[in-house]
Formats: sequence, structure tokens, C-alpha cells
Amino acid sequence: MKVTGVVLERQGALSLRDIDIPGTLAPGANEVRIAIKSVGICGSDVHYFKHGRIGDFIVTEPMILGHEASGVVEEIGSAVTHLRVGDRVCMEPGVPDFSSIETLRGMYNLDPSVRFWATPPYHGCLTAEVVHPASLTYRLPDSVSFAEGAMVEPLAIGVYAAAKAQIRPGDIAVVTGAGTIGMMVVFAALAAGCAEVIVSDVAAEKLALLASHPEVTTVDLTRESLADAVAARTDGRGVDVFFEASGSTRPYETMIDLIGRGGRIVLVGMPQEKPQLDVVALQVKEISLTGTFRYANVWDRTLKLLGSGKIDLKPLISATFPFSDSVRAFDRAAQHLPSDVKIQISL
Amino acid sequence: MKVTGVVLERQGALSLRDIDIPGTLAPGANEVRIAIKSVGICGSDVHYFKHGRIGDFIVTEPMILGHEASGVVEEIGSAVTHLRVGDRVCMEPGVPDFSSIETLRGMYNLDPSVRFWATPPYHGCLTAEVVHPASLTYRLPDSVSFAEGAMVEPLAIGVYAAAKAQIRPGDIAVVTGAGTIGMMVVFAALAAGCAEVIVSDVAAEKLALLASHPEVTTVDLTRESLADAVAARTDGRGVDVFFEASGSTRPYETMIDLIGRGGRIVLVGMPQEKPQLDVVALQVKEISLTGTFRYANVWDRTLKLLGSGKIDLKPLISATFPFSDSVRAFDRAAQHLPSDVKIQISL
Amino acid sequence: MKVTGVVLERQGALSLRDIDIPGTLAPGANEVRIAIKSVGICGSDVHYFKHGRIGDFIVTEPMILGHEASGVVEEIGSAVTHLRVGDRVCMEPGVPDFSSIETLRGMYNLDPSVRFWATPPYHGCLTAEVVHPASLTYRLPDSVSFAEGAMVEPLAIGVYAAAKAQIRPGDIAVVTGAGTIGMMVVFAALAAGCAEVIVSDVAAEKLALLASHPEVTTVDLTRESLADAVAARTDGRGVDVFFEASGSTRPYETMIDLIGRGGRIVLVGMPQEKPQLDVVALQVKEISLTGTFRYANVWDRTLKLLGSGKIDLKPLISATFPFSDSVRAFDRAAQHLPSDVKIQISL
Amino acid sequence: MKVTGVVLERQGALSLRDIDIPGTLAPGANEVRIAIKSVGICGSDVHYFKHGRIGDFIVTEPMILGHEASGVVEEIGSAVTHLRVGDRVCMEPGVPDFSSIETLRGMYNLDPSVRFWATPPYHGCLTAEVVHPASLTYRLPDSVSFAEGAMVEPLAIGVYAAAKAQIRPGDIAVVTGAGTIGMMVVFAALAAGCAEVIVSDVAAEKLALLASHPEVTTVDLTRESLADAVAARTDGRGVDVFFEASGSTRPYETMIDLIGRGGRIVLVGMPQEKPQLDVVALQVKEISLTGTFRYANVWDRTLKLLGSGKIDLKPLISATFPFSDSVRAFDRAAQHLPSDVKIQISL
Repeated sequence: MKVTGVVLERQGALSLRDIDIPGTLAPGANEVRIAIKSVGICGSDVHYFKHGRIGDFIVTEPMILGHEASGVVEEIGSAVTHLRVGDRVCMEPGVPDFSSIETLRGMYNLDPSVRFWATPPYHGCLTAEVVHPASLTYRLPDSVSFAEGAMVEPLAIGVYAAAKAQIRPGDIAVVTGAGTIGMMVVFAALAAGCAEVIVSDVAAEKLALLASHPEVTTVDLTRESLADAVAARTDGRGVDVFFEASGSTRPYETMIDLIGRGGRIVLVGMPQEKPQLDVVALQVKEISLTGTFRYANVWDRTLKLLGSGKIDLKPLISATFPFSDSVRAFDRAAQHLPSDVKIQISL
Repeated sequence: MKVTGVVLERQGALSLRDIDIPGTLAPGANEVRIAIKSVGICGSDVHYFKHGRIGDFIVTEPMILGHEASGVVEEIGSAVTHLRVGDRVCMEPGVPDFSSIETLRGMYNLDPSVRFWATPPYHGCLTAEVVHPASLTYRLPDSVSFAEGAMVEPLAIGVYAAAKAQIRPGDIAVVTGAGTIGMMVVFAALAAGCAEVIVSDVAAEKLALLASHPEVTTVDLTRESLADAVAARTDGRGVDVFFEASGSTRPYETMIDLIGRGGRIVLVGMPQEKPQLDVVALQVKEISLTGTFRYANVWDRTLKLLGSGKIDLKPLISATFPFSDSVRAFDRAAQHLPSDVKIQISL
Repeated sequence: MKVTGVVLERQGALSLRDIDIPGTLAPGANEVRIAIKSVGICGSDVHYFKHGRIGDFIVTEPMILGHEASGVVEEIGSAVTHLRVGDRVCMEPGVPDFSSIETLRGMYNLDPSVRFWATPPYHGCLTAEVVHPASLTYRLPDSVSFAEGAMVEPLAIGVYAAAKAQIRPGDIAVVTGAGTIGMMVVFAALAAGCAEVIVSDVAAEKLALLASHPEVTTVDLTRESLADAVAARTDGRGVDVFFEASGSTRPYETMIDLIGRGGRIVLVGMPQEKPQLDVVALQVKEISLTGTFRYANVWDRTLKLLGSGKIDLKPLISATFPFSDSVRAFDRAAQHLPSDVKIQISL
Repeated sequence: MKVTGVVLERQGALSLRDIDIPGTLAPGANEVRIAIKSVGICGSDVHYFKHGRIGDFIVTEPMILGHEASGVVEEIGSAVTHLRVGDRVCMEPGVPDFSSIETLRGMYNLDPSVRFWATPPYHGCLTAEVVHPASLTYRLPDSVSFAEGAMVEPLAIGVYAAAKAQIRPGDIAVVTGAGTIGMMVVFAALAAGCAEVIVSDVAAEKLALLASHPEVTTVDLTRESLADAVAARTDGRGVDVFFEASGSTRPYETMIDLIGRGGRIVLVGMPQEKPQLDVVALQVKEISLTGTFRYANVWDRTLKLLGSGKIDLKPLISATFPFSDSVRAFDRAAQHLPSDVKIQISL
């Protein structure tokens, strides 16, 4: 079918243009058709734009970008019962094989056959309409705007990491990295039961956006020591939970030292090299470590946290461009202005 | 030794007087001596006062009341390292056999030989000074007052129940019963990750104290239906967690119907009769049910939640009496005024 | 399509005859066609035969019975990769909506739209061929016969219950009820880490089948006390895990007393009335209780336990009838001979 | 007090002689006096003997060796209720501060002030009598000999690792390393619910001792590939659990590749260098990793597994020497004969 989309032609070349893509706009029995209203630009969109690839995922054909989206239901398939035409919704962008072993085990995000928006070879959602599985389409609470609805995707990464951390009420956590994902982890960790979060980065502007929260201690690594902050906030015992969200190997050098006995590590950022790990120190403290890959089964609970006001992401929406200015929106996002967190496109 | 304390002579008879009690004010190696600064009156104190017993615990000898306390460290034992003279502290009132099987397994609250303040035959803490194990004495954050420090005990019941509920971020919970303990469960459940809590009671004044929180839905059972509220807030799916904090058997009649598949029940209130339970409905939804007995290993994390401002209990302190007016304080507490939550005594 | 099946015409009337049923023998993309080789007769099959209903499930139209089956793959759908024609397999009889919320959460057994063999209005598998989702079709290890493969279904109930019990190595368990399901729970609990199982029943013949296992203590309730056995085997501390597999309300009267602090209850049997539960005793010991509904995600692991020899069910196959004698097989099963455990039909 | 013990004078010098050590043979209120009957020689005993140190633990004063012991209770303290004179027992060798934070949290093994037998500066138990906390002294089942009782210590390491692995019934595990501890992990993993264990080593003699178990697949790394064995036993999906028990960094190079999605790693061996870890591969599969330090709360359950016959360690006792030949016993142990597993000393 022919649609109009924000098309990454190849590394560095982006156009808003008509393009022929597979599929149809007629929803199947368990699908819905959605008019897109708001799409956030993710760091991965910008990375494909600037580098043409992420790891083994290489853009070899023109591809529509975008995977953080909200919209309005326009048509429902014959078997859909929980959605109606006109519903305001947001969409989980990764579609697994629903009958895979991983799906049956509740970890559909790990299904190797997942089709994820704007991950080659699959097109994204920066277009007027999409057809999507109803079971991955979630109604927005009345109190959640389309712009916020398009923030559910990055926040879900944080909520999933927080859920994996098995936070107990009153835990203290470290989050290394205050980029967009690091921020999401900070908010999610607090919403999930942490009494305090210590967040470190080298970007003062990012830390400043978090510093107003009374439960947050910021550590500017250009002039402060994370170890000192941890010692001060935990009476020297170390934190309960450590989230790595910077994607650097640097935090691995000291992370075990900063964690208390029985503590937990959740890796969210993906480093480019294999870090060394002080496994003996980990053993002696019986620390556990795990990592997250996107998210599963948190979309509805992320919406509830936004809807009840426990998490407020509105201050993180730095600029909004109309769909016709999508290329300009990407140019802005690609500048990585220190004060920018999320650039969105409105349809 | 001779001390001055608030002594329950027998059912209905309370005096502030000198009394000889076992023990000494010289701390052992692992103990500290504490000057008491603030003591809250618990429902159990009032119950002993009015009825002379709680279940099998019968007041047969004059007993000092009080177990919700904060104070200042006056002397430390030779082996104590984490506390210093002058530290502002609060104290966990149940002292287990530290080498019991239950303690070694991390559930020292279940040790049958626990000695608990103001539970016959053990005296409570409504007296000028106490000697207490250092390991059950917790330093107050600077931001936590003595009055709030004396609220840690009831809040710990809520935090422990929330921890037992294995809340995942974004869960929706019901709390049946908006008495002091029910309120603590509400605050703890929200701090522990719930997006929303639905709380039911027949006392409009209690519900009014909770209604100002945007994440709380109150249900006045004299004129509203809990089932309706649950259906409305959960799209008919049922809640994730159900806390029973009323001590009535009534909630058991419908609780399974109000809970979603895979949900969890935590029983905090203790009913006087054995309720019937619809176990087949529980099985078909694979709901799990457990109960809590006081708390273990949550005192420090409860303090962190108070210290970082995630939970604010100051509005619940309804009146404060000087130690010399302790008997009057109990008279007030025994009236169970609908607008009273916590009556405290200040030393 | 027209097939030959063991048809329950109505309560009490069974025929082996041709019958028209919905569907086709051509597998869909994710399906396989299987030649049935062995089918076990379950208590539920007999119950439908004798009573025409189980609870709200009422036989109103002629229905093919049977849901415990093994067979050989005859044809595979276009998208099937893990099975090949000729594979010896067994099949999970409940087919959920794969994109339901319950499936995505890993608890597809709780999906309310599950279609389960031989549960009205769905036909069972006592017929020559079936078409089934490939993801619910499991290859038999070489060491597992068709007859044993048809035992996976009841054993999976036990393995699932054992998994739910969160057994820690060296636990001691009680199983109340030594019927077929109770036996499966006994074997699964031992395979899953229990050091010992105490099993109670009133049927001496059933207990005798278990008594040869050194880790099993049998309690004949007609002349022995379960409480005495528990006290003797646990030094009076109570068991770690309690499986209710009798379907009677009697075990509820004493179960809490027989369980140690922090113990767990898993309800497998479904009583006809709502039992009373001593919730205060449960709370004081912080016992947790849950129930199971069929099984999810245990079919492959059940096969591994059979395949490696950790569980041997061959002694429980009491008699095998050819398909042409299916009605006679049901007549035998309906007699409930004390020495019979499993009657099978071979195709 | 003066006792006769197996004294490590300094690196390489061992004597059976009288020695003055701190303490008394009169048990405190919560202690018991035990006549030692059997002591196993651990790899750490031999390591101290040959090297005079293990990591930061350096033998600077003559030290009695031995920490794997069984015996007979000779005298009980005034507060001891669960043991009687004459009881056959074994003893957990690490004594924590019972009121430490770690003990209260159920992880007393992590208490930094633990006093552990034969770990400098604390004497071991290779002497006629010891005084020990009653709560760390466990009665032997009748079916467990003194020699087996002295095997509980190493087996407890395996059982603890198996418990940490959160094995689900039917899991398949890898164990790298077939030394004494690796063997214990193999037996414990099978007893704890694994259907199969694949164990790798370069020592054919050690593997031969395990090969007779039908659930065990051995991999001789001098001529076979662990990856091939894993692929064959798991249909290419990878194992559920990976136990590292070799203490080498080599297994880290490939371990993530050998594990299925959602799998778990438990580190038991302690490598001398910090290994590199492929954390991105771990994240993409959401594998979790933890380590164990000795054990906590498994002594009683280890005894139950021995007592019920689920684990049989008798074939692993390679030689037994009388106390008077203790030095000769150590000389034998120090030879590390390929066919030797456990050398014991009998008193």
C-alpha cells in the first residue's frame, strides 16, 4: 500500500514522502487501525539516521522511522472486544509471534521473531495510520494526553527495569546515566518503591532536570564522586539496587563496591565492549545481576502510573513539531542539545 | 529497678506511678540506654486498658503500656558501633531470641519467644528510659521528628504488608478498613509502587482524611459499593492486590470476586471468627493469599520513606499530651473520636 | 468433517461411532496433524460419562471424550519449524487465545477463552486424528513410550503444583489425597526437591502403591493420624508445604496446624463447598496459600522428568484397551477399582 | 585452655600436638559441648597447609585445622531445648553475630564478623571436643552416619547454590568443574529438581564418578565440547541453569551462549582474576547471575536430603584415617589423587 511517512532513505538522508510498504490498512480479526496523533523521536531513530545501523541491524532499504506513538482507534477487527472506535490509545511497538515459547512463558519481548517498529527490516509508525494487534494497543486514561501517551514507550523501559529490580519499599538505588532512559529509570524506581535515587552523569543540564525532586540526589561526575554520595546516603552500607543506564563500561569498574549485601544490579544500557566484572566481590555479597531487553507486560501499568499522577513526564517534552516539519524535528534531535530530553512530532 | 511509668493496674485502671520492674538501666554489650521522647498510643494499648486482654494475652499483673516510641541514646554498650550517645532514634518493640531458627531464617517476628513491649508479661516503654538491643534501635533521619519517629511502628506494619504483597509498579490495590492500620497500609502500598488504592470503610471521617490523595479512591460502605468502585477503576478485571485491614469477616465474602487473575491477598486485620473462603474461585484465578504478623526487617526502610518525604504522617497526629497527662491521653484515645487517628504522649 | 470417536451421547450413554464435528484435518500454518496412539481416561471423562456435567460445564450435545493423549505427527503447517512428520509427540489439551492478556503474562491456562479437549462444548481427542497448535505439541524423548506420553497430562498437574509451591531443596510436604492426581503431586514434589512426602488417604490400596518409595510416608486415615505423622517427621515443627489433592473440605480443618512458620499451601483439589479457614493461625505463621488451575509452561519440563527417569509412571498404568473396546475401557474406569490408577486406550 | 589438635604451625608444617587456645569447654546458656567423631579434610585445609594463606586470610599463628565435623553432644547449656546429651550431630562451622543486620535479614553467612572454623584467626575443630552454639548444631537422622554427617558441610554448599538457582522442576543445568564442590552441586541440583545435569571437567576420573547417574551427562573437556553437549541435550535452546564450580575464568568466555532465555547463573567457584562478561548477550536473553558465599539456612534441609536417601555421598569417602594419623591424612589429601574425593579423619 502507499502511505506518506518519514522515510530514512539511507544513512543521513531523511524525507517526508510517499512510500509503498507491505500490508494493508484493513485490520485483521484481532487488529485495529489507528490514526497516529503523536510520535516521539527516540535515540535509536536518531542513531539510524546518523549511522544507518545499530549493531547488526542495518538499514539497507528505505524505512519509515518512529516507534513511540499514540493515536485514535479508527476501525476494529471482528474479534476485538476491549477497544472501540474513537478510543485514545498508545501502542506497544514490538509484535511477537504470539504462540512462541517465549510468549507462552510471559517473556514475549525475548521472542527472536519479534517485529519491532523502525528496526530493519520493519517500518515504523511515523505515518498517518497504522494497523496493529489489539492486544498491544492500550487505551489512554482521560488524564493522559497524546503527547504523554507517546512517552509510554521510553517510560516502559524504566518501569520494566524497576520491576526486574524487585524493589522493596524504602530501597535506595543508583542510576548511572541521566539520558532519557536514565531519567525514565529514575522516575520508575521512585514510583516502584525506592525511597531515594542517586543519579550520576557528566551532563549538568540533565542532572538539573532531576534535581528538583526531593528524593533524588544528583552526582555530577565531572566534579563529584558517586562513591562519596553512596556512602553518605547509605551510612556506608551501599545501595540496594544499581541500575546501569549509561551504556558505558565505566560503571562496571566500581559498581560492586557501591552495592550492599544482597543487592541487585539491573543493566539497561548496552556497552559496546565486554566489561570486566569483579565476580568474587559479587559472590561475597551475594549480589544478583540481570539485564533487560525492552519490556514485556508493563504497558498497562505504565499508563496507570502516568494516569494517577505518580509520574509526570510533561516537563521532559522539550519541543513539538508538526508532521510536515518532521525532517526539521530530526535535525533538532540530532543536535543533542543538553537541555533537550524528548522531541515529538504531532499529527 | 524502680521507674515511673504509665501502669495498667488491671482492666480499666491506669496510673502514672512508680513501679518496680525487672532489669537494669545499665546496657549490656549489645544494648543501648534511651531517653524516651515520644510515645504513640496504639489500639492495642487502649484494648488492654478497656478489656484487660487481647485474645490469650491477659494482663494479670500491673504492666507499663506503650510500644510506639522514639528517643535519644544516652549510653551505649561496649560492642555497639552503629550508634552514638545523642543519636535521635526509634525502637523496634519486639525482641526475639537472636539465635532462634526463625531469626536465622530472617523471620524473627515469628520467633515464639519474642518479648514485645506492653504485651503481657512484658512491660512497655511509657517510662523515662529504656534499655534496648542496639540492633533494634534505628537512627532518625534529620528530617524526621520524634513525633514522626514514634509513628514508625504502625507504619512498619503497613510497609511490611506492602512488601509481602510483592507489589509491581502500577498495581491497583484495595484496602478494606481505614482505621489507623488501614491508613498505614494505604500509604505504604502507594509508596511501594501501587498506582492507585481503593479504600473502603463505614467511617466517613477516616475516609475524608485519605480522599485528598489523588491516587486514592474512597468507598463509603454505608452508601457505596466496593465492587462498583473496583469494576470502574480496573475495567472489570479486578485489582492486583487486596489488603484486608478491617479485622472483619465481611470482606472475605466477596474478596475473591474483586481480584484479578494472578492477584494477591495480604491479611493484616485479624478476624474473631474463621471466615469461609471461596477456594475454588481462588484456584481458578490462581490468587495467592498470605498474612502478616507485625513486621521484620522493615524498620530502616520505613524510616527512609519518611525521611525522603515519600510518606508524610504528620497530618495523622491528632493530639499530643505531656507525660504527666498520660492518663488523660488514654481517656481521649479510648473515646475513639472519629476524627482522631493518633494520640501521642511527649516526654 | 466426519470422524470416528468415543462419543458421550448424554449422561450414561457412550458409543464408539462416526460423528460430524467442526473443523478440518488440514493443519493451519502453525498447526500439526497428529495420529493418536494412546489416550488415558481421566476422572473428568468418567465424571461426564456418569453425571453428564462437571459444575457449570454441561454436556448438551454428543461430545467426543478424552484429553490425555500421545501420537505421531503426520503433517505440519507451513510455519512449523520445531516438529517433523514422524515425530512421536504428546499434546497439551487446552488451547488459549494466544494474544490474550493472560497468555502475554505467561498464565495462558487462566485465559477465559481456553478451548480444552472434552470440556463442553469442545470435542476431545478419542479419535484417530487431531489437528493441534504446534506450540502445544511436544516431542517425546526416545525413552518415553506412547503410553507414558499419555500420562504427561495428569503428571503436568502435579509438576505445576510443585512449581507453584516454590519448593526449596529438602522441604517436607504433605499431600492429602492419594487418587491419581494426589499420586502425581507426590511424585512431582519429590522430583522438585522435597526430601520427604507424607501422603494421606482412606484407600489402603492407593497408599500401598506409594509406600515402596523410601521418601514417602503413608498415612491411612482410617486408622492413623496425619497430625501424628507430621509431628514425627518434622520434630513438631510442621511441614514446609501442604498440597490439598483430595477435593474434600476435611483437610482445611487442620491444615494450618500441620504447617510450619513460613510454609506454603497449594490447593489442587476443588471442594464442593466453601471451607472455613483459620486465617489468624495462617497470619501468625505467615503461611501463604494459593491454588492451581490445570497447568501452564510445564509440559516440556514434565517430559524431561519422565525422560531422565526421575519419575517413573509405568507402574500406574493399570490396564490398556484397544480403541475398538473403548466403551469397555470406560466401564472398567467407572468401576473405580481400588487397585486401578490409570486405564488407557491404545490406537 | 589446653587441647590436642591438628595444628598448622605455618605454611607446610603440620603437627598433632597439645596447644593452648582461647575459650573454655563449659558451654554457655545457648551452647553445647560436642565430642568430635569425624572430620573431613577440605580443599581449604589443604590450601592453608600448602600455601599458608587463602587470599587475604593469612596464617600468622599456629592454627587448628578442620571445619567439616560430626560428633556427639556431651553437655548442653542451660537454655538449650532442642538437643540432648548423647545426640549425634553435625555442626555449621561459621558463627555469626546473631544480632547483626545480616543475621536479622536471614543472610547470616554474609555477616562480616562471622567466626569460621579454621579460617585465621579462628581455630578449627580437629580436636577432641568443641563448644558450639546450639542453634548451629543439628541432629543427625538415624540413617546418617558420622562420616556422612561430616559431609554435610561441603554438600551444604551445593544445596545452597541449588536453592539460589531457583530451580524449577525439570530444569537442565550445567555444572563446570567436577571437583568435590562441583560434585556436590551436581547432586544438589538433581535433588533440587533438575531433570538433568551436564558436568564438565578435564579430569576423567572425577567425571567417571558421576557418569553412573542416569541424569548426568559428563563432558571431558580434553576431548569433548560443552557447547555440543548443551546443544544436544536442549535442542539448541540452552540450559536453564549454569553453575560455575571450577574457579576458572574460562567458563565465562562462553557461559552466556550456553544458557537459554531467562536462564540463571550461580557462581560457586571463585576465580583469581576478574573475568570479562558478555553483558549485552546476558541482557538480550534476560539471564540473571548471582553468586554464593558458603551457605545459610540449609543445614537442616541438607540433612533431610541425606536422611531420606535422595543423596548418597558414601561412595565419595575415599579414605579414613584415625586421629593419630591426621598428618598422614593431610599428606594423602595434599597429593590430590585423581580418584580421591574426600579424605576423613575419625576420632
